[in-house]
Amino acid sequence: MRNCIVAQSGGPTSVINASFLGVLDENNKLNYYDNVYAGLNGIEGILAKKIVNLSEIPYHELEGFKYTPASGLGSCRYKMKDFNTNEEEYKKLIEIFKEYEIEAFFYIGGNDSMDTVKSLSSYAKEHNIAIKFIGIPKTIDNDLMYTDHTPGFGSAAKFIATTVLECYLDSSVYSNNGIFIIEAMGRDAGWLTASSYLAKINGKPVADFIYLPEVAFSKEQFIKDVRNKFLEQNQVFIVASEGIRDAEGHFLGEQKSSAAHDKFGHAQLGGVCNTLKELIIENSITSRVKTLELGVTQRCAMHCASNTDIEEAYMVGKKALEYSNTDCSGDMVAIKRNSSCPYSSETFLIEASKVANNIKYFPTEWINKEGNNVTDAVTEYISPLIQGTPEIPLENGLPKFSVIKK
Amino acid sequence: MRNCIVAQSGGPTSVINASFLGVLDENNKLNYYDNVYAGLNGIEGILAKKIVNLSEIPYHELEGFKYTPASGLGSCRYKMKDFNTNEEEYKKLIEIFKEYEIEAFFYIGGNDSMDTVKSLSSYAKEHNIAIKFIGIPKTIDNDLMYTDHTPGFGSAAKFIATTVLECYLDSSVYSNNGIFIIEAMGRDAGWLTASSYLAKINGKPVADFIYLPEVAFSKEQFIKDVRNKFLEQNQVFIVASEGIRDAEGHFLGEQKSSAAHDKFGHAQLGGVCNTLKELIIENSITSRVKTLELGVTQRCAMHCASNTDIEEAYMVGKKALEYSNTDCSGDMVAIKRNSSCPYSSETFLIEASKVANNIKYFPTEWINKEGNNVTDAVTEYISPLIQGTPEIPLENGLPKFSVIKK
Repeated sequence: MRNCIVAQSGGPTSVINASFLGVLDENNKLNYYDNVYAGLNGIEGILAKKIVNLSEIPYHELEGFKYTPASGLGSCRYKMKDFNTNEEEYKKLIEIFKEYEIEAFFYIGGNDSMDTVKSLSSYAKEHNIAIKFIGIPKTIDNDLMYTDHTPGFGSAAKFIATTVLECYLDSSVYSNNGIFIIEAMGRDAGWLTASSYLAKINGKPVADFIYLPEVAFSKEQFIKDVRNKFLEQNQVFIVASEGIRDAEGHFLGEQKSSAAHDKFGHAQLGGVCNTLKELIIENSITSRVKTLELGVTQRCAMHCASNTDIEEAYMVGKKALEYSNTDCSGDMVAIKRNSSCPYSSETFLIEASKVANNIKYFPTEWINKEGNNVTDAVTEYISPLIQGTPEIPLENGLPKFSVIKK
Repeated sequence: MRNCIVAQSGGPTSVINASFLGVLDENNKLNYYDNVYAGLNGIEGILAKKIVNLSEIPYHELEGFKYTPASGLGSCRYKMKDFNTNEEEYKKLIEIFKEYEIEAFFYIGGNDSMDTVKSLSSYAKEHNIAIKFIGIPKTIDNDLMYTDHTPGFGSAAKFIATTVLECYLDSSVYSNNGIFIIEAMGRDAGWLTASSYLAKINGKPVADFIYLPEVAFSKEQFIKDVRNKFLEQNQVFIVASEGIRDAEGHFLGEQKSSAAHDKFGHAQLGGVCNTLKELIIENSITSRVKTLELGVTQRCAMHCASNTDIEEAYMVGKKALEYSNTDCSGDMVAIKRNSSCPYSSETFLIEASKVANNIKYFPTEWINKEGNNVTDAVTEYISPLIQGTPEIPLENGLPKFSVIKK
């Protein structure tokens, strides 16, 4: 028997399941493996032998995963220890793989998952174990190196830009509108927040200010900017990343300015948008401030997904299966953009070690000189990634999503 | 010249613009009036003569409003004073209407707007002024009496149910998932929150508990319920209305339990979901609690609107124009449901005075006996209202929305 296994790790995205379906579908076509297994809850689940055989599940129960958000195979945030100091886990995992006659392991994830792919493949090579370890990229954050972009980002960017557009209209209906602040994810990199620049009415971006983690946040400049804009327009629309921090590197959303935060010690209770709201009110710009924390919706809003993103997530899964039949291991499937207009892309392999523990920041040259917005370059980069409306199966007017029976 | 005027008031909805377009389109068909004017920012704007002539705006600039969320004509929260004690405003308004040769005024709004319709029509009748005042219903809250439901509710319900479904999947990916709390709007009535019951996987609602303003909230029962469910499932999914209050009538979201709230005195800073989170953590059920306040997205997410809702919002606008050619004034266009399956509805007129300052609560008989969820009856009622996917015009992958040039 020749079998393979696929698993998911880290934070979910809207399109992460399209990747595991890509692995399965391509194997159904090429028949490289007798069975495609799935590890539930990533490496952590595999170590606990939480394994199902996708090849034995009726296909009609699985095909819906192409349009089902969140990690359908379950996820984990489990970091393998270094095998030089702690070999036990590696031995156990290889044992389980041998038991299931696994020849290839596909791990769908971000930075940390690529670290796992790197470590496992190094361990296997060192011990002459003929199992291949291949990484499949996913993260809404778009912060993986070498790949032009990551599956998951396009759909999140589309949802953010759409929601920014809608909230801008909602926040503009009174003669006395005040200030609206939207908080997007992206602790280290500003890609998600920058996607709000694509929200335009008659060609003009609706966001007055866009704050990214890549720019040191100055409270003084923020107050000055917002005050001036409010005096000018009687309305200000702000999009801020959860990851913005000051010149000393302190996260703005974690500055525990109130007893409520101290009490629980949970920074997420406050959040960046409430800190900014506080600044605006404390500095008497206006008391009419509304906030919206997009929260997990930006990583699971399949109902607003980009079809281009879904198809690319599917493609990297299919390609991973194909690559596994070549002489490779310890690599991640990356995306190369051939052209933006018309958009076309292809895949290539990159060493997972180069991707692991690395962050692709938002480019400095795409940030305006004031550091409070982005430039038009972002439109050309992101726009192709948000195109296309998927045909999501519906049931009684709502999306019909799939789950693995456990 | 015979002219009419339309204006919008109160909180926006995704489909409120379809109603003013209905007025315009029906007049273009029937030619009752020479011009359809629009008052910008409701009564407040009309009093300031902020008036545009929709009939003179090229139609291609207006047709997009059928699929543009938020009050495209602007809104206000302006309550007319009683004309027996303060006649000035009434005189001024009638003067402006006469200047513009207005014969009918259409006011799109909720409870308060129907109060305005009632007052203006009474004043006009008392003074033998031949202007008709007709109300067009809108509110995501679905809390207007006599009408089976309100335009705006179906789209909000669809967005809420869809988002609940997606967030449920997102919150279920780890082996250790914790508790997820979603907060929906609806300060007085639980319709919006109850719509989360429609979010089902394989026929089973995903929300473990649904808390409505109609049921006195007991902290003790909540803690007991959530603790038991968490022990049973290692995961609890909760949907709560912003309007839940305890047996003494105190809003849960306004209980200023932290310095952060006291400081600004803004109850919305805290919110119900954070109060519930606090209860869960304080009572050591788990510290893994995530919250999501849907905020304004639920009233402006046109990208997830119900086509049935859009068409009904359009219909009540058209019908208002038709009714204005009959012997009526001081009435609101209401919706009568003829059948749920297949769904069909028609309109009728109801005195605005009966709708004004009245609230249609969520029916007690649709709440389960524990008071922590709703019954299947809600599915039959809401399901027809969320059907149909509108064909929203797109531009570069995002909705192409319209604005009135001022």
